Amino acid sequence: MEDSNNPTEVVRDPSTLAAELANEHVADIAEILNEQPTEVASEVLSHLPLDRAVEVLDQPELEESADLIASLPDDRALALLSGMSADRVAEVFRDLEEPRRSVLLDRLDDETRLSVLRLLSYPPDTAGSIMTTEFVSVPSTWSVGRTLDYIRRVERTRETVYAIYVLDPRTKRLIQTASLRRLISGEPNASILSVAYPRRPVTVTPLTDREDVARIISKYNLLAVPVVDRDHVIGIVTVDDVIDAIVQESTEDVQKFGGMEALTEPYMQISFIEMIRKRAGWLCILFLSEMLTASAMQFFEGELEKALVLTLFIPLIMSSGGNSGSQATSLLIRALALREVRLRDWWRVALRELPMGITLGTILGLIGAVRITLWQKLGFYDYGEHWMLIALTVGTALVGIVTFGSLAGSMLPFILQRIGFDPASASAPFVATLVDVTGLIIYFTVALAILSGTLL
Amino acid sequence: MEDSNNPTEVVRDPSTLAAELANEHVADIAEILNEQPTEVASEVLSHLPLDRAVEVLDQPELEESADLIASLPDDRALALLSGMSADRVAEVFRDLEEPRRSVLLDRLDDETRLSVLRLLSYPPDTAGSIMTTEFVSVPSTWSVGRTLDYIRRVERTRETVYAIYVLDPRTKRLIQTASLRRLISGEPNASILSVAYPRRPVTVTPLTDREDVARIISKYNLLAVPVVDRDHVIGIVTVDDVIDAIVQESTEDVQKFGGMEALTEPYMQISFIEMIRKRAGWLCILFLSEMLTASAMQFFEGELEKALVLTLFIPLIMSSGGNSGSQATSLLIRALALREVRLRDWWRVALRELPMGITLGTILGLIGAVRITLWQKLGFYDYGEHWMLIALTVGTALVGIVTFGSLAGSMLPFILQRIGFDPASASAPFVATLVDVTGLIIYFTVALAILSGTLL
Repeated sequence: MEDSNNPTEVVRDPSTLAAELANEHVADIAEILNEQPTEVASEVLSHLPLDRAVEVLDQPELEESADLIASLPDDRALALLSGMSADRVAEVFRDLEEPRRSVLLDRLDDETRLSVLRLLSYPPDTAGSIMTTEFVSVPSTWSVGRTLDYIRRVERTRETVYAIYVLDPRTKRLIQTASLRRLISGEPNASILSVAYPRRPVTVTPLTDREDVARIISKYNLLAVPVVDRDHVIGIVTVDDVIDAIVQESTEDVQKFGGMEALTEPYMQISFIEMIRKRAGWLCILFLSEMLTASAMQFFEGELEKALVLTLFIPLIMSSGGNSGSQATSLLIRALALREVRLRDWWRVALRELPMGITLGTILGLIGAVRITLWQKLGFYDYGEHWMLIALTVGTALVGIVTFGSLAGSMLPFILQRIGFDPASASAPFVATLVDVTGLIIYFTVALAILSGTLL
Repeated sequence: MEDSNNPTEVVRDPSTLAAELANEHVADIAEILNEQPTEVASEVLSHLPLDRAVEVLDQPELEESADLIASLPDDRALALLSGMSADRVAEVFRDLEEPRRSVLLDRLDDETRLSVLRLLSYPPDTAGSIMTTEFVSVPSTWSVGRTLDYIRRVERTRETVYAIYVLDPRTKRLIQTASLRRLISGEPNASILSVAYPRRPVTVTPLTDREDVARIISKYNLLAVPVVDRDHVIGIVTVDDVIDAIVQESTEDVQKFGGMEALTEPYMQISFIEMIRKRAGWLCILFLSEMLTASAMQFFEGELEKALVLTLFIPLIMSSGGNSGSQATSLLIRALALREVRLRDWWRVALRELPMGITLGTILGLIGAVRITLWQKLGFYDYGEHWMLIALTVGTALVGIVTFGSLAGSMLPFILQRIGFDPASASAPFVATLVDVTGLIIYFTVALAILSGTLL
């Protein structure tokens, strides 16, 4: 496994590879195929037994399954698609290109085609788009024994039964949920309702955001949650789908927080052009906004000429504002994502960040003032006769800037969420840029107040 | 639920609250208790029926369970602890204070005490520390029918059977794994091995990092993974434990990336002093390192005096280096966390980031030079007779700084991982600080090369 990432070793003869892989775990086969060129992977897939190839294609970890399906002859492709789970088939059709897409879609059996079209109709990142349409449901009139029998016979291809959904026999509405565990302990002749979980089932709608689905599954310790549309179960989202969703969300959050568009592919696979596109956009926006610092500096040029010593501390002071802002933003992005705080709590947060910023700013301000005093006294540098006033200026400016940074950094995620953006777009560079311009203005204003009449 | 976060509404009479809560989902009860003062929550817990109280305490979402147990009389506390799952009991003992801890531990039954002591012996964030010691195992000599019967009778308190572990009857070593799903489809008289999964079971050791456990569970789509010590199953980590672990890890990663120590409690619950401690440390380290910028500026003071116009672009140039570095770092932190790249791939990454940085730097450099030209030509600002050389200096410096930022930002996570730190400690502010000092030096060096003889 340690070496499986090394592309120089892994391009191999397809039929030998297929024979070698036959006994591997499907998740491992998917991982190995990911590292092969599409032609090799597609050859391997044709050499595997049909049911094994279906299992491999059912792995959410398998990348480019659409390309693989597209590379196979129609009959083999259809045989594979008919065996795969509906959510994976939908993923394939999401990426397939015309005219192949229509050809294959038309030749699917009616039931599969309907499921796939329905899955494709939901927006990405919703429960509807990640759910599977295969689940076990029985009418509430059935007995425990009949249900067990049904699972044994009809549902035998299903590897995992996450839950059994008990429906009203007339309206088909979801009434209750039973676990396999309780089912096998039940009296065979008793009603299925005797082993169902007595409370109202926890459900989501097809438009529920996948992050919320993850939160619900995690909170109620479920193996799957039913997706319900007008009281009818139309699919389930399982705990493993949710793990993939959580991992993907946190990757996107970290990338956005780093100040770029989230990638859709792994770092090593994305093309150079695509990567430039994802990074240059934000970098240019930040650069253009940061140009305001040059304008601010021009505005204070007179002061700069009189007291060049002030320029020495500009990078130090600006970065402190950015750093405290970045801390506050990272805290609030996560707190909002985990619903630890809500939009309406913004003033509570502001009331915490204000004294927090003042305290942190005072700590840094003192260190800054001590540094100037030490350098002056130890003779490392001569800040001139007004060195104490300069130390006071730097210290006071730091209190103001760190306080402003903490407040701005903590409020930005709220503002973004309020106007309908992802709070994670409040990236560290975004906050730093916001704070930089204001930081300069604070610094020069403090300097004018303290030094006017002496240096200025 | 929308209002459940509002602390002004939720302090309530314990016995009424207990009666109201009796029919709620345990996860909801835990959430409501989290919002009550400990005394109220503890009262509610004594008013709930014992089995219900045990279910509530078994929720990993319930905070301060140790305080709750500590507030109850010994007998009630012991009754609750004996009902709870071993991993939750261990969590309580991890937080309980002496002398109560020893008193309760001594009075536990031997089997529970042993499990708890064993769980407590594993370092935090390992499989051993998050596993549960309750699982179903049967000798390989048993039949399908006998196993089913055993689960029905002996294991009837278990709500979910994640898997059945089949052991060698003599050595007790783990041979194979069977699912409940396959068990019920099996022939009652056939051997349990007839329904077991034919491949070698996927296992982890008690010291496996919880992030790796999460990756394995997600990759192989497991509901639980057995924790194996010298071929013996000592516990299982279930998929719901892993979700909690993943969510917690990503929170920690975002907070570290924001430039602070990871919090151990939700944002609104952590005390002011603790929050200062978590934030001030890094902020001071960054501040002290950033002081090097002041030293660098002092070093180039002569140049600054001669060409004050150079100072105008210092914030702009420095921030561009920090921003490109922050992008690269966020990319590599996630790529390393998801094992998309390994330590030994560092040179592959460097070879990607070098042209990437040059391209991004050229884009920003061009924008910067155009900005100076425009301002000069449109009469917004007069950069003097050598404005073209200044534009060239700014543009060239940007190429160098953005390239350095991308390279430094992408290599820092590798270096941290190599010397044994969490790559996520490569925070955006850390990278920005690293790039700031170097950025100044690059800027002034480029200025000396281009402007010497004219401005300098």
